[in-house]
Amino acid sequence: MAKEKKLVESITSMEEDFAQWYTDVVKKAELTDYTSVKGCMVIKPAGYAIWENIQKELDRRFKETGVENVYLPMFIPESLLQKEKDHVEGFAPEVAWVTHGGLEPLQERMCVRPTSETLFCDFYKNDIHSYRDLPKVYNQWCSVVRWEKTTRPFLRSREFLWQEGHTAHATAEEAEARTIQMLNVYADFCEEVLAIPVIRGRKTDKEKFAGAEATYTIESLMHDGKALQSGTSHNFGDGFAKAFEIQYADKDNTLKYVHQTSWGMTTRMIGAIIMVHGDNSGLVLPPRIAPTQVMVIPIRQQQEGVLDKANEVKAALIKSGLRVKLDDSEKSPGWKFSEQEMRGIPVRVELGPKDIEAGNAVIVRRDTREKITAAIEELPEKIAEVLDTMQREMLERARAHRDTHTYTAVTKEEFKQIADGKPGFIKAMWCGCQECEDAIKEEIGVTSRCIPFQQETLADTCIYCGKPAKHLVYWGKAY
Amino acid sequence: MAKEKKLVESITSMEEDFAQWYTDVVKKAELTDYTSVKGCMVIKPAGYAIWENIQKELDRRFKETGVENVYLPMFIPESLLQKEKDHVEGFAPEVAWVTHGGLEPLQERMCVRPTSETLFCDFYKNDIHSYRDLPKVYNQWCSVVRWEKTTRPFLRSREFLWQEGHTAHATAEEAEARTIQMLNVYADFCEEVLAIPVIRGRKTDKEKFAGAEATYTIESLMHDGKALQSGTSHNFGDGFAKAFEIQYADKDNTLKYVHQTSWGMTTRMIGAIIMVHGDNSGLVLPPRIAPTQVMVIPIRQQQEGVLDKANEVKAALIKSGLRVKLDDSEKSPGWKFSEQEMRGIPVRVELGPKDIEAGNAVIVRRDTREKITAAIEELPEKIAEVLDTMQREMLERARAHRDTHTYTAVTKEEFKQIADGKPGFIKAMWCGCQECEDAIKEEIGVTSRCIPFQQETLADTCIYCGKPAKHLVYWGKAY
Repeated sequence: MAKEKKLVESITSMEEDFAQWYTDVVKKAELTDYTSVKGCMVIKPAGYAIWENIQKELDRRFKETGVENVYLPMFIPESLLQKEKDHVEGFAPEVAWVTHGGLEPLQERMCVRPTSETLFCDFYKNDIHSYRDLPKVYNQWCSVVRWEKTTRPFLRSREFLWQEGHTAHATAEEAEARTIQMLNVYADFCEEVLAIPVIRGRKTDKEKFAGAEATYTIESLMHDGKALQSGTSHNFGDGFAKAFEIQYADKDNTLKYVHQTSWGMTTRMIGAIIMVHGDNSGLVLPPRIAPTQVMVIPIRQQQEGVLDKANEVKAALIKSGLRVKLDDSEKSPGWKFSEQEMRGIPVRVELGPKDIEAGNAVIVRRDTREKITAAIEELPEKIAEVLDTMQREMLERARAHRDTHTYTAVTKEEFKQIADGKPGFIKAMWCGCQECEDAIKEEIGVTSRCIPFQQETLADTCIYCGKPAKHLVYWGKAY
Repeated sequence: MAKEKKLVESITSMEEDFAQWYTDVVKKAELTDYTSVKGCMVIKPAGYAIWENIQKELDRRFKETGVENVYLPMFIPESLLQKEKDHVEGFAPEVAWVTHGGLEPLQERMCVRPTSETLFCDFYKNDIHSYRDLPKVYNQWCSVVRWEKTTRPFLRSREFLWQEGHTAHATAEEAEARTIQMLNVYADFCEEVLAIPVIRGRKTDKEKFAGAEATYTIESLMHDGKALQSGTSHNFGDGFAKAFEIQYADKDNTLKYVHQTSWGMTTRMIGAIIMVHGDNSGLVLPPRIAPTQVMVIPIRQQQEGVLDKANEVKAALIKSGLRVKLDDSEKSPGWKFSEQEMRGIPVRVELGPKDIEAGNAVIVRRDTREKITAAIEELPEKIAEVLDTMQREMLERARAHRDTHTYTAVTKEEFKQIADGKPGFIKAMWCGCQECEDAIKEEIGVTSRCIPFQQETLADTCIYCGKPAKHLVYWGKAY
């Protein structure tokens, strides 16, 4: 068994060093690799297949709400980036600049898109003339670049993959409704597919997107008690429209500015899956997002009939609509178990000569290690059932973890004690002033995650300054 | 009818000016738009939906052959690009250079990938150790940048979308087999899905990919008689492996170099669809690739019951698995017909009060304008049949056009006359010397498209120099 243990022993335990555990899992589950391009990553097949499933699910949900996909250039001329003042201030310090095309210097340098509001505005300016052209509800799947100083696979890298939706509407109400609608699409996706519970809310002015009137966010809690911003949706009002002069002729023949939104979700969600569901044996993938849902592992596969039966089982499971692989390599069963566990494949089916003789197989759940003996001919229904249960229980466990790591502070003293000793969300009242928010970050070491839609009144006064409280805020340490 | 005619009259006829016709169709069918980013394009929803279908079809065919998708960085450090001598010579003059990250100059400049051989080599060097790690059969969907001087939507632009497959194998034979296999995937895809017949062959040394041992190509013929390189597949032998030191320990415990391939297909295929199938009313999309296959157009839709019936028909068609839209806008039927034709939607269903009374509807084929009256309840099967016929006939028509525009030259005189007066492919014998190939380009104005796999002997001597002929070559003017 020495060899079998090696794979698992090669990862640090999460209790010992969560950051190192994360890095180890990413590497051992073969999700990414480092490259010669500093701060960028290679997304390997096991990682990219998760992203493909995220894309498929999100894209379907987008299209059900009327979204159409487009593709805009990856470059932004400097003059275009500079048109909206807040936006350029937010992004200029972290973009990559292209200065030469072929052997010649460019007349105007261009950045590689960090986000594409300015390009969509430039496009909409020419594409929108009349109220008949509205709304525009476009999205693109692409990569973007932000010149980060410190990077971590999936969580923060100089290039990452995402989708960015950009919409234009006739009225402020319609834009606001779309902003909220897309936030809800993200939240439902996280909970239903990734089994990650989220808090829906609004960002404070300090934390909102550069150029936005309002930024909405879903915030999730990782296993170590740190928060992760998991998807954002911005309402720009007519700010960008005024900077770019995007006007339409309304029914009454007057020219009006459009109202815009944008919203995005990124490969960072793969990091969230790892940090919410993973354990000391590696990755644990929620069945709905897992590229492979079932690994069939034969025991004593050299014995006559075992591999044939394993192949039969695999075929029957695939036919029933499951995503299935068979590990018929020459490794030992124990090593195969470790690999399947490291890669987070939701269930394995163990199948040996004795099982076959009895007409049975053993289903093992990745998350609980529960072993379920089932008749071979009932495997398709039984496994579908196990996967459904697992999906539901993974969400419940993550929610329970989130709830037991959500604290309430009424006094500054309490606030400090929780922030120092109990990793998680802290709910506390806030007066709405940025001075208090800055001071809380500085003194207490937590940032505002969001002003949740679901408000409560824990106290009448701001936890920091004692002046009348305006909002309940979720605070925390964030990735 | 004046208004109805406007949409079609706004495009130049292809007989008058093919290039202008192409530009007009791209614009009026709303496939792309210009942007402030010189040489780049916006791909609008109608264009991007075609690309999504191309992706879906190709990706499925790739995965059936064992391809796995990955994602590598978009930047290539200059030192990495320079490792393979021929490769850097081919690409360095046309790359975009990033020199600054954020506010600081980079220590080493990086180009935006024009293609990713060097990045895959850098990755494989670390990822491949033993024969057990082989083969690697990876692909990525991404955008690439080549700093072209003159650009045209889809056909040649500074940024374009594509897929690039990169594989590594233990033996030369396996690499060669994969190179040919992927060329055949492209060829089958073009013929079966895009209804574009292709010539399969090998590029001459002059025309092959920078760094390749052999480049295979599929060449198609546009309506104006110009050729379009539609997909290429390269065998690198162990050239890149030696430059990047990609070695594996074989079963006999000796270190060996891997053998590599790469292969790509791009958004340029949307240009091919336009130029092979389009007519003077606009785009004509082969049913298998059309994002919308059927447009239901009600006649006298204000009359009671018409819209209800149209919606019923739409629902029944969607249920049968077709991709269907209903145009219930307030435009006149004639205008709707023109729009549906301009956008190349394969069939429309006309449905008016009289049709409904008779229990009928009229199916109109986009390519032949043939009108077929069918009972409303039989529409799903009838339309499926019409679409199948249309798909098959579009390929047959394109093949007939290609064949009648493929000429044979045995003397230099004939060669010149055909090249001057008859746009199309010219088959002629060649000695294999680049001097003749250069001279033919210079004097006769055609380039070698490919050395077809299906060889014939038209003569014993080279059409240019009269020395013994080695190959039959397809020549032509190309996009």
